[in-house]
Amino acid sequence: MKKVRLGIIGIGLMGSRHVKNIIEGKVPEIELVAVADIKQTARTWAAEYLGADFPICQDSNELFNRSDLDAVLIAVPHYQHPTLTTGALKKGLHVLCEKPAGVYTKHVREMNEIAAKSGKVFALMYNQRTNNYYKKMHELVTGGSLGAITRTSWIVTDWFRSEAYYASGEWRGTWDGEGGGVLLNQCPHNFDLFQWICGMPSRVRAFCHNGKWHNIEVEDDVTAYFEYPNGATGTFITTTGEAPGTNRFEISLEKGKLVINNSNELFLHRLNTSYMEFSKTTKGFFDKPECTIEKLEVDNDYPDHSGVMRAFAGRILRGEPLIAEGHEGINGLTLSNAIHLSSWLDKTIEIPFDEDLFLAELNKRRATSKYKSDN
Amino acid sequence: MKKVRLGIIGIGLMGSRHVKNIIEGKVPEIELVAVADIKQTARTWAAEYLGADFPICQDSNELFNRSDLDAVLIAVPHYQHPTLTTGALKKGLHVLCEKPAGVYTKHVREMNEIAAKSGKVFALMYNQRTNNYYKKMHELVTGGSLGAITRTSWIVTDWFRSEAYYASGEWRGTWDGEGGGVLLNQCPHNFDLFQWICGMPSRVRAFCHNGKWHNIEVEDDVTAYFEYPNGATGTFITTTGEAPGTNRFEISLEKGKLVINNSNELFLHRLNTSYMEFSKTTKGFFDKPECTIEKLEVDNDYPDHSGVMRAFAGRILRGEPLIAEGHEGINGLTLSNAIHLSSWLDKTIEIPFDEDLFLAELNKRRATSKYKSDN
Repeated sequence: MKKVRLGIIGIGLMGSRHVKNIIEGKVPEIELVAVADIKQTARTWAAEYLGADFPICQDSNELFNRSDLDAVLIAVPHYQHPTLTTGALKKGLHVLCEKPAGVYTKHVREMNEIAAKSGKVFALMYNQRTNNYYKKMHELVTGGSLGAITRTSWIVTDWFRSEAYYASGEWRGTWDGEGGGVLLNQCPHNFDLFQWICGMPSRVRAFCHNGKWHNIEVEDDVTAYFEYPNGATGTFITTTGEAPGTNRFEISLEKGKLVINNSNELFLHRLNTSYMEFSKTTKGFFDKPECTIEKLEVDNDYPDHSGVMRAFAGRILRGEPLIAEGHEGINGLTLSNAIHLSSWLDKTIEIPFDEDLFLAELNKRRATSKYKSDN
Repeated sequence: MKKVRLGIIGIGLMGSRHVKNIIEGKVPEIELVAVADIKQTARTWAAEYLGADFPICQDSNELFNRSDLDAVLIAVPHYQHPTLTTGALKKGLHVLCEKPAGVYTKHVREMNEIAAKSGKVFALMYNQRTNNYYKKMHELVTGGSLGAITRTSWIVTDWFRSEAYYASGEWRGTWDGEGGGVLLNQCPHNFDLFQWICGMPSRVRAFCHNGKWHNIEVEDDVTAYFEYPNGATGTFITTTGEAPGTNRFEISLEKGKLVINNSNELFLHRLNTSYMEFSKTTKGFFDKPECTIEKLEVDNDYPDHSGVMRAFAGRILRGEPLIAEGHEGINGLTLSNAIHLSSWLDKTIEIPFDEDLFLAELNKRRATSKYKSDN
């Protein structure tokens, strides 16, 4: 069997998991040929886990200069995602990059332009797209039988993180280390699913609270209001400061409603007619259209990160579909950036927004950040 | 048994229900002695239902001038609530008034001042306070064992109303007839419960959409964001244009979470410690405090409107507690007015807000209303 020869850049918390998935045989069409990390502790772990003879690079440049690679998986802090992706593509390598696509859309847009011209495969690690509940929701919404979306509401307040979590790395919870808080670290999956299933809003009004629950510079509590091009409205509520928290995603459509609880329970409410049509034709004052409620059963054992890697290999080897195209990463980040910008400027933001203005506002915050990155 | 001798002003949809509850013996300590309505159709119904000899007045003045009354129940359009309440109190009558307390807080504030000086009993028909699920929620939140509120979220999008409903009266869905849409007609119960259980926010940012789902002047789709004095945040989402809709009220507190679904299912999530304390002391990065979940069973057969009337009689006869004190009605209306004002001015509104400004903005809309009331 032909295999994709992969190098992994960054073998910390996430990168080491990807290493294990490959070594444990969960991605048969990928052969791990090298890893890289600038941290000695990570390289020591790799030498122990992969053996003394395994190629372990000191940094991305050393890895890029190897001649035995077809592709790289990038699992480093957010700011470096576009830089390393672009670097790898220019070396002729296919790229699978961790989320988020980057910290600011201007950077990601430049990356996407280079990726489009590269002719190489560019994918993002949106493993939650392999969750069969969200896949089903995506199918039902984009399939069209429920009509257009009329309202969205996602309460995802179950991202509880302790003070110790933020204290575990100097870069955590800082403008210059992460470029944001819950929006950049925890929510990229939610934003990707949100835009994948519901499409993009055209206006955002948001309220971020910095260091509300933790001793951090960045936001750990967010409420956002959306308006969509078709007039639908929506809300997104998140925090890392609440327990037990809630994870409830509701979508109302012209002919029904979908609710996912805790990413593992999906209800479909299906009307026998569009409620706007019913409203216009019924003679009753308080009548509602008939509705059936169904709990949809799907396979809860989904392929997760390994599934994203398997699809990545399948695209490279046989042109098969990816789980998430790399260029789609800008959508979730656009939501995130628009929420930040609305809160920073205390006003409604139209999408597309002024990306230079966003970067200038971000850089103001980076300038006074207590952590200084090398980026 | 001594009885309270009651007159009812307005025997339309709600007033006629109150008449029936009394006649059917559900309020033993109240004797209905007269009714009043300016509409002939209503008086015809009363004569049929109550008998030809029963005193049926042509208007409130005729009823006020009777000498055999201890109290009145007011069930007329919203704008007239403060005017008639004040008129009755000045005649020395106790008053039970339908919700909302009025259309604008300036009017209600004047009414409350007169009521406070009157020495008479003044109560509001907040029958949903007798729902045992909300009563239990109120007890648990105000009891204090769950700590302070940290977040509120009420999605109440199950107020579906048809186009025929709005077309059923010229005054419906107009600025001069109702003074608003879903906020004034359907939501007063929700706002009363919201403030009764969670207290009042200090800031409101809201987004109202007028005639989005129906051919009406006023709002039928609302999203509001709240900030409370202690830093907690909240959201309130409502519409009359959606089916099947949702009714889900969630309150997060320092030591737990409460969720009521469809006004008839209550879940208590109780932590063994405050999550802020846990966050500060745990060494784990992703650990959460221990939490137990309990479905609370309460009696679902609650006394509703009759219970409010029975308590009203009990207060008059024996000084017992009311279900809702009249002066509390201003709180729910303050929420409603603040939401309107925020949306009209497209900015955040601090509570207390400028009541003259609100009235001026309301009057602008009344001036161009297609319906002209006599108020």
